[in-house]
Amino acid sequence: MTIHSLNPRPDQYSYVFGGREPLLSVRPGDIVEVSTEDCFGGRVTKPHDVPSQIVPFAELNPVSGPIEVLGAEPGDVLAVHFVSIIPARSYAISSTFPFFGALSATHETAMLHEPLEERVWFYDIDLKAWTATFRAQNSDFTLALPLDPMHGTVGVAPASGEVRLVVTPSTHGGNMDTPEARAGTTLYLPVNVAGAMLSLGDGHARQGEGEVCGTGLESAMNSVIAIDLIKGSAIPWPRLESDDFIMSTGSARPLEDAFRISQKDLVGWTSELTGLDTLDAYQLVSQMGLAPAANVCDPNYTMVAKLPKWTLKKAEVFGGIHDRLRALAAEYSASQ
Amino acid sequence: MTIHSLNPRPDQYSYVFGGREPLLSVRPGDIVEVSTEDCFGGRVTKPHDVPSQIVPFAELNPVSGPIEVLGAEPGDVLAVHFVSIIPARSYAISSTFPFFGALSATHETAMLHEPLEERVWFYDIDLKAWTATFRAQNSDFTLALPLDPMHGTVGVAPASGEVRLVVTPSTHGGNMDTPEARAGTTLYLPVNVAGAMLSLGDGHARQGEGEVCGTGLESAMNSVIAIDLIKGSAIPWPRLESDDFIMSTGSARPLEDAFRISQKDLVGWTSELTGLDTLDAYQLVSQMGLAPAANVCDPNYTMVAKLPKWTLKKAEVFGGIHDRLRALAAEYSASQ
Amino acid sequence: MTIHSLNPRPDQYSYVFGGREPLLSVRPGDIVEVSTEDCFGGRVTKPHDVPSQIVPFAELNPVSGPIEVLGAEPGDVLAVHFVSIIPARSYAISSTFPFFGALSATHETAMLHEPLEERVWFYDIDLKAWTATFRAQNSDFTLALPLDPMHGTVGVAPASGEVRLVVTPSTHGGNMDTPEARAGTTLYLPVNVAGAMLSLGDGHARQGEGEVCGTGLESAMNSVIAIDLIKGSAIPWPRLESDDFIMSTGSARPLEDAFRISQKDLVGWTSELTGLDTLDAYQLVSQMGLAPAANVCDPNYTMVAKLPKWTLKKAEVFGGIHDRLRALAAEYSASQ
Amino acid sequence: MTIHSLNPRPDQYSYVFGGREPLLSVRPGDIVEVSTEDCFGGRVTKPHDVPSQIVPFAELNPVSGPIEVLGAEPGDVLAVHFVSIIPARSYAISSTFPFFGALSATHETAMLHEPLEERVWFYDIDLKAWTATFRAQNSDFTLALPLDPMHGTVGVAPASGEVRLVVTPSTHGGNMDTPEARAGTTLYLPVNVAGAMLSLGDGHARQGEGEVCGTGLESAMNSVIAIDLIKGSAIPWPRLESDDFIMSTGSARPLEDAFRISQKDLVGWTSELTGLDTLDAYQLVSQMGLAPAANVCDPNYTMVAKLPKWTLKKAEVFGGIHDRLRALAAEYSASQ
Repeated sequence: MTIHSLNPRPDQYSYVFGGREPLLSVRPGDIVEVSTEDCFGGRVTKPHDVPSQIVPFAELNPVSGPIEVLGAEPGDVLAVHFVSIIPARSYAISSTFPFFGALSATHETAMLHEPLEERVWFYDIDLKAWTATFRAQNSDFTLALPLDPMHGTVGVAPASGEVRLVVTPSTHGGNMDTPEARAGTTLYLPVNVAGAMLSLGDGHARQGEGEVCGTGLESAMNSVIAIDLIKGSAIPWPRLESDDFIMSTGSARPLEDAFRISQKDLVGWTSELTGLDTLDAYQLVSQMGLAPAANVCDPNYTMVAKLPKWTLKKAEVFGGIHDRLRALAAEYSASQ
Repeated sequence: MTIHSLNPRPDQYSYVFGGREPLLSVRPGDIVEVSTEDCFGGRVTKPHDVPSQIVPFAELNPVSGPIEVLGAEPGDVLAVHFVSIIPARSYAISSTFPFFGALSATHETAMLHEPLEERVWFYDIDLKAWTATFRAQNSDFTLALPLDPMHGTVGVAPASGEVRLVVTPSTHGGNMDTPEARAGTTLYLPVNVAGAMLSLGDGHARQGEGEVCGTGLESAMNSVIAIDLIKGSAIPWPRLESDDFIMSTGSARPLEDAFRISQKDLVGWTSELTGLDTLDAYQLVSQMGLAPAANVCDPNYTMVAKLPKWTLKKAEVFGGIHDRLRALAAEYSASQ
Repeated sequence: MTIHSLNPRPDQYSYVFGGREPLLSVRPGDIVEVSTEDCFGGRVTKPHDVPSQIVPFAELNPVSGPIEVLGAEPGDVLAVHFVSIIPARSYAISSTFPFFGALSATHETAMLHEPLEERVWFYDIDLKAWTATFRAQNSDFTLALPLDPMHGTVGVAPASGEVRLVVTPSTHGGNMDTPEARAGTTLYLPVNVAGAMLSLGDGHARQGEGEVCGTGLESAMNSVIAIDLIKGSAIPWPRLESDDFIMSTGSARPLEDAFRISQKDLVGWTSELTGLDTLDAYQLVSQMGLAPAANVCDPNYTMVAKLPKWTLKKAEVFGGIHDRLRALAAEYSASQ
Repeated sequence: MTIHSLNPRPDQYSYVFGGREPLLSVRPGDIVEVSTEDCFGGRVTKPHDVPSQIVPFAELNPVSGPIEVLGAEPGDVLAVHFVSIIPARSYAISSTFPFFGALSATHETAMLHEPLEERVWFYDIDLKAWTATFRAQNSDFTLALPLDPMHGTVGVAPASGEVRLVVTPSTHGGNMDTPEARAGTTLYLPVNVAGAMLSLGDGHARQGEGEVCGTGLESAMNSVIAIDLIKGSAIPWPRLESDDFIMSTGSARPLEDAFRISQKDLVGWTSELTGLDTLDAYQLVSQMGLAPAANVCDPNYTMVAKLPKWTLKKAEVFGGIHDRLRALAAEYSASQ
């Protein structure tokens, strides 16, 4: 087991996917211990800091990377297993942000309204209790919320030489903001360039489905990922696998197109795994599938389509790579 | 405890909400044992029946009702608690339908494609094992799926004298097609006319989130509902309450508008229940909420916004009516 | 030439399409002189009147009718030719309205913003100069705008027993709010019930494409229409014909679905008229078509798809009915 | 008057906006004679060529450029005046393309349908008669269509270091596909990087509004553009100006968001030009504006919002630059 560390200096963070030299090179089967900054680049530190005055829009969501995966070529699938995701500070931050969020006029859903109030919430993180404490700003309501750490932004270099701001999720992954990207889950990403060029960041100590107000519990993270490669098995959109579910994603607007992409991909994947023809797979997914929103606030919205793995009978997903990565993660954890 | 029965004759089924004379009158606190037909009106009976040739579009989804609730007036909230929902036949049916379903061109998402194949699946219902057996049509794959019976269509007479086809969900409820409308759950509907005029139908032995192919496991049902009334507590959209969650719904297009409606309603509801101001409630919902799709196939799409009730602390929802209806349901069940 | 008059009393105005007894019965080929109220029912009369406090949402857009067309049966097409549309008062009114309009949060595009300011503009109508004078409310800018009178709301009883609020355009016509519905144009509507049951109202002294702020120059009208019938020639959506263009409409959300409906209908219509197959007609429409927005504010948005009639060569549209109605209109005008 | 020529070699065409070295450097006030390839890179040459088999998706729409404009800095506005746009070959080509076009399932509006037939139409270009002749493929219908040449794709390097495929229109311009980009019109683009880095291509001998089938009359072009710079006058989205109209654009999904962006920009622009406050400008635009679709097929849809310049009274747009460029164009033409 080869273990790498990636702890970018402030000037090394990236704000795009694509077009950057790697900070680290690894091989399939390697482990990377990686630190990531919060979506504000760690620059919001006091309750009365105003994020939009401190952080320009194009400097939101710094990512750690890219990580070059040796041997990865266009047409392969990169497997990123989240071994652990641990909040790195004693606090996490959430905020509204002018013209951002599902219940606000935005730059795209352009209206004549003034922006909503920009309000900031600091949550106390208690790793021992595994909670983050919500404190209302306009009353004395407080509540300890269970942690459920995840990475909002994980992706690779886009195809065709594109360079994309980290904020926009698309076929290359990116800012999908799904709570499914938690420890114990494997994310599958299409490889578009030699080396794949993986980057990740935007940790959330927890996040509801839809990321309604536009932010989760934004948190710097100390994470461990296991990386592997599936040769010659192209996928059109990012997928995920947990112990219990296979999951397809779609990122687009309007939201029904994100839904359609994710469901069509899940139907096709189910068909491949079970031998069902397309319409029979459509039927099975229709009756057994779950369809949670991931984000309804980013430049592309993201929907997730989930199917319980038991419905696939003995089908082996990508040659059983998720189970092998689970085992590798256990081995790593035992070694610490 | 007053118990009524409603078993409509074939000619008594309704295909609209609004504008119809009641089949039954009940009082708040009453129980109704009601039989409902499947979405095909029971007219698809053999594997080679072609639904679109047998059932005109305007005769899909017959509903049982209306049930007049004495004392209900515009501005009240009708509470419909699902005591039990039991498949009435030994089979349930699912099908694709020309120009219907999330992954098909439709009458609204109009395209130049030929319709997808119209395929019908018969599921064997086993009430003892509590399963429905899926049989692929183009391979020998079979799978026993757990039952999770629900009503896809439950609603009241619309406001302003409108009469709406049952297929279109809106503020009056209707064809929301959410799997959350299962036994043990209370549905809250705005009252728009004297007597409320409740109707229900479109039972599904189970259904995935999104009702992707356009149909669930369509099944005639023998259901029991408990009916109650909350005076003077107007709600803009249907809501649900289970033992663990409060839920808001939104039915609109595009899907992000259905999402926005449901989330805005949940934020407002949370604010009322907790005393949080709007932005603090927005924050709590953003971090603790779930956002599953209900249907992405009907003339309006439906999204559900869910919040765990423990996050509301000691807040009492509609005066604790859900718990009282749970108790009434238990009393009813014990009496049978 | 038979000429009828329809001047509804205040209590006779209708706020729905469908389910109403006719105020008048006419035969194909007849002329109707009809007076219509403005969208506020004539209740906004002074610059400081606040529309949302004076007119409940469900009482916006009163229509004159229904007019029963003897002989009309489901599957026929009703032709309504606008002979003349003349503002009936010395002023027209436009306003913003809370949670209405394309650049505002709405009940469907639900957000947490406060409503935009509700502002009212009174325009002086000068029939001789054929202008309406815009007066800015917050500066001394004034401008004489050319009149271009039209009816925003024209429709028939919906199919399947539905009764719809006048505000929602759909397959039955209704509140399409297209400036194309001007004098000299023929509107074709599908007949869904015996007698068709035509109603119209919501006159605008003029309106931009998209009806961006949610209202045009709202004006009571004295209009003259010529009515005819095309037997056995069902159409799925309202169409229009002017001297120079055939036009299809689509009313739906999101706006691309309204676009798709209108374009698909125009492709099919062009195919029928020219003998081109579907893809060749798709090509011709793609290169020669115009696609203006009608409304982007109503519960369904409306797009118009236009094709110059010269591209159809000698094709005769609905047997040349538009030219005959033009001639009838000229005869009527000469007789006055 | 300085006149440049830009005739890229096949290997010099670009398929992205951003991240490329300039092929040419010019100064404000210069003229550029530029040749552009058709959207197929000139590789479709015979009626039975199948575009999707000949041209990979990422090689559609080659553009000529970038052209560096000396002195241009972020926050400036680049003015591109189309002096002339002349088809360069004796034919233009249109085609359907698998999973592309407004009336087809696409990669985003993902469905289970097979792709529509991929059909190719060759149009004969007659510069003398100024026509392109449509020939139906499945009947003997032919029709001479008037030429109305335009560039579908014109843009600059995006902000924040992004590199975008030419096919996606956004704030940097790009593949807006509006017929308004014709000779005699000035296009205003935000400058995001030093030198602006202008590229253009995708000429259409003509195109209907909406580019419904996904292509116009695709044609290599010999074009002449005049380039100028407006210092310190940032705009959020591309705008256009003709002799008669000012025009704002918006490129987004769903189509109503493209509409909203374009209308909000036009309202703000009108407010600046006339001194009307925002709501008064909203009112004027609502009554006098036009709102044609540009494209409803590209990864972002584009809407145009137009206002007649006479309604602005004596307001001078960008210091009268359009008139000066018109004069420069006349001077150029006289010199040829």
